[in-house]
Amino acid sequence: MAQAQKITPRAEDFSEWYNDVIMQAELADYSPVRGCMVIRPNGYGIWELMQRALDDMIKASGHRNAYFPLFIPQSFLAKEAEHVEGFAKEVALVTHTRLKATGKTGAAAVMPDPASALEEALVVRPTSETIIYAMFAKWIQSYRDLPLLINQWCNVVRWELRTRLFLRTTEFLWQEGHTAHADEAGAEQEARLILGIYRKFAEEWMAMPVITGVKTESERFAGALRTYAIEALMQDRKALQAGTSHHLGQNFAKAFDVKYQTAAGGLEHVWSTSWGVTTRLIGGLIMTHADDNGMICPPRLAPIQVVIVPIWKSDAERTQVLAVGERIAADLGAAGVRVTLDSRDTMKPGAKYFEWEAQGVPLRLEIGPRDVAANQVMTARRIGGKTPAAMNGLTEAVRSALDEIQSTLLGAARDRREAASIRGVTRDQFIAFMKEQGGFAYGGFCGDGTCEAAIKQETAATVRVLPDPEFRSTPAPTTCMWCGKPSKAEAVWAQAY
Amino acid sequence: MAQAQKITPRAEDFSEWYNDVIMQAELADYSPVRGCMVIRPNGYGIWELMQRALDDMIKASGHRNAYFPLFIPQSFLAKEAEHVEGFAKEVALVTHTRLKATGKTGAAAVMPDPASALEEALVVRPTSETIIYAMFAKWIQSYRDLPLLINQWCNVVRWELRTRLFLRTTEFLWQEGHTAHADEAGAEQEARLILGIYRKFAEEWMAMPVITGVKTESERFAGALRTYAIEALMQDRKALQAGTSHHLGQNFAKAFDVKYQTAAGGLEHVWSTSWGVTTRLIGGLIMTHADDNGMICPPRLAPIQVVIVPIWKSDAERTQVLAVGERIAADLGAAGVRVTLDSRDTMKPGAKYFEWEAQGVPLRLEIGPRDVAANQVMTARRIGGKTPAAMNGLTEAVRSALDEIQSTLLGAARDRREAASIRGVTRDQFIAFMKEQGGFAYGGFCGDGTCEAAIKQETAATVRVLPDPEFRSTPAPTTCMWCGKPSKAEAVWAQAY
Repeated sequence: MAQAQKITPRAEDFSEWYNDVIMQAELADYSPVRGCMVIRPNGYGIWELMQRALDDMIKASGHRNAYFPLFIPQSFLAKEAEHVEGFAKEVALVTHTRLKATGKTGAAAVMPDPASALEEALVVRPTSETIIYAMFAKWIQSYRDLPLLINQWCNVVRWELRTRLFLRTTEFLWQEGHTAHADEAGAEQEARLILGIYRKFAEEWMAMPVITGVKTESERFAGALRTYAIEALMQDRKALQAGTSHHLGQNFAKAFDVKYQTAAGGLEHVWSTSWGVTTRLIGGLIMTHADDNGMICPPRLAPIQVVIVPIWKSDAERTQVLAVGERIAADLGAAGVRVTLDSRDTMKPGAKYFEWEAQGVPLRLEIGPRDVAANQVMTARRIGGKTPAAMNGLTEAVRSALDEIQSTLLGAARDRREAASIRGVTRDQFIAFMKEQGGFAYGGFCGDGTCEAAIKQETAATVRVLPDPEFRSTPAPTTCMWCGKPSKAEAVWAQAY
Repeated sequence: MAQAQKITPRAEDFSEWYNDVIMQAELADYSPVRGCMVIRPNGYGIWELMQRALDDMIKASGHRNAYFPLFIPQSFLAKEAEHVEGFAKEVALVTHTRLKATGKTGAAAVMPDPASALEEALVVRPTSETIIYAMFAKWIQSYRDLPLLINQWCNVVRWELRTRLFLRTTEFLWQEGHTAHADEAGAEQEARLILGIYRKFAEEWMAMPVITGVKTESERFAGALRTYAIEALMQDRKALQAGTSHHLGQNFAKAFDVKYQTAAGGLEHVWSTSWGVTTRLIGGLIMTHADDNGMICPPRLAPIQVVIVPIWKSDAERTQVLAVGERIAADLGAAGVRVTLDSRDTMKPGAKYFEWEAQGVPLRLEIGPRDVAANQVMTARRIGGKTPAAMNGLTEAVRSALDEIQSTLLGAARDRREAASIRGVTRDQFIAFMKEQGGFAYGGFCGDGTCEAAIKQETAATVRVLPDPEFRSTPAPTTCMWCGKPSKAEAVWAQAY
């Protein structure tokens, strides 16, 4: 049970605030294992709703789930040159398969048995391209087998030095899609399709507005031809990369010899994509919506959408308000609303309000004896606003309140992002903006990696994306905001998680 | 796509048959990683349906899902003496966190970087009691926090020497429940509740009848007070342990110091349980139902319940039967039936039948021009039986056919099990039964481990369970069928997977 502890205000220390919100809402906890977190039921409930919604969209677009091994022979990683370069420094390596007693006590009581050393170390998957392409090479023979559209929900491990709950942990959960296509256009279309699904999910389910676009070479996935991403802006004006979709070209197909016979009888390497979102999204949800009182969960992803708090003084009142509360809970539950009745008699209503607010439940219904008499309940929105609602038609009123909260959260987040965005920046404005405020800065970019490196060095900002048309400025910038040479594309810079 | 290859008949080689069914139905595949399998979409679809059904039951009984780290410090395993004994010989150990280039080629091109050696090795979880109890110790303070009812869906690793697809793999998927209670009765009730859920799931969803009961000491989970299990009998008359539920007593609570303050103000260790079922269940499903033509999937767990195969000769017929097929598919889909229309024009109907039969689809609807004219379809059940069905009321007819197939499969499996069971065995009968036929042998048991060991030595049979009352024989046996001493309990023996 949550201890009543204070949440550090955002304005005072955003990072402390973030941790406090997570602890207070019991979304996650630190574990005794370096860099690994425990996702507690309140946090895992959000992840389950995210999974369900995204999985439905992934399946509706023709993909099927499968499961590939956790372990990858170390030699597999070495097959795709850029890929091993990208991941070799942050992997967990399994080298032994038996513990033996040492006769010592404590942590040293056992040790890996040298006699159990493996001939070849196994990598705990940091991502599964290599093992999946080894299988694709077996499964794909002809153009009739294409496109092959596979998705996997699983855990992955990257040995991160600095970790933060949800945002960057040694182990995390994700989905990784892997698809093979007959030609470049097929793979490109797929990478774009998924980017659209991620955007839809971020905006319609998470109420988190995102910019879509393509990454520059320096931010591209190890082994990819092009990396697309959705980028969101957090309340501290730092960007969060919330999902990526990679067009891998024929790089992995060539490394793992994934070929197919064309209709004309020729033999070609497939074109492929991979794409993923992770439990990091829960961090994004928190930093987009939560406030100084704790979590705020968008209704569509709230494990509990409505909490009913009955208010009584006497036993007779208790019986009465509980009966009404139970009836309402049954009605809402039957209508598909995720509802709970807080009938605990060890806590006062105020303490209950405090606890459910910290957990981010979008809507609270209070029922006291006077409400019963007036045939109404008091509704309190987590985002602010308290109004009575008639018992008659309550289910419909609750439903529309939840819809309205969902869209209000999205609108507020979009307004915040736009207020924290600056367009057509000059170099001086850019430097001042990044040093004093931060946010999304749109400007011309020459496309040169040396400009990118200099900008990162001086302001810690990176190109988040070269934005898709609908996000671009009018008129388009003509010169690089940093070096003054002709602009090749508009870029969006920000300091990022 | 499945190659048309022959399935070895069960009577010829059951083990080959089993592998052939899996390959032909594309349920799983061997991977390049020793002992690890790939679960292909057809197999993973079954697992997803299993998860959904079981997860609903687990949640309906008050449990909540969470996620704990993949890695466990080696010292944690050593805290519970029997537990480390039980798992030390079959674990994957992470010892390094970086690969370095060696300058060589092939598999030796990279190696674990000695500079990245961990101070303490991490065990890839073989089960999560130890890490979970470390967290329970943080979360549980008072009797108000009890019972704590947690479940986790995840992957686990046990370094098995001999592996078989689904039945015994180095990595497998499972759910593991972990609960803490104020007293022994609470934990006992929980372990029993879960056993009941497992049985219900096995029988009502998998159509796989099971015996429930308690394990003898030699078959008990490492660290448990009592282990309950559901046991099924496969078509080759070997038993499959299909799920276990452990009453752990206070063993783990004491090892990890999980205490709570009682209502009276005292301090007590909690009582706990753990329980799990794994992807092994898919192996059980296959060995319970499949036949020499391939997989047979019970309708409630079939990713595709109905396949529609249109039959045509001319283009005009093709247009006609496809239109009807599409309408039926839409109607069935709207009614919640998982249906697919096989409109491929690269294959003849017979080849399609063969393929869908091998995949185990319970019901096939064939639509030819004459069927359209007669306003009917031909229905063919995977378990045998072909009858026409009127277009009018087809959805209801399909639904009741699926229900009937589900219950027919359960009944047939139960009959097979009973035909392969022998009760009140004498020692000589037992030996002959185990050597010549195999199956479930019920007999008196003195409870002595030396009898158990001798029986195993001579017949390879083990006590599957001391059965619950409803499975016991009447009259109860009075002497141990092996040594002739007084029987302490009836036992069910079998050779097992």
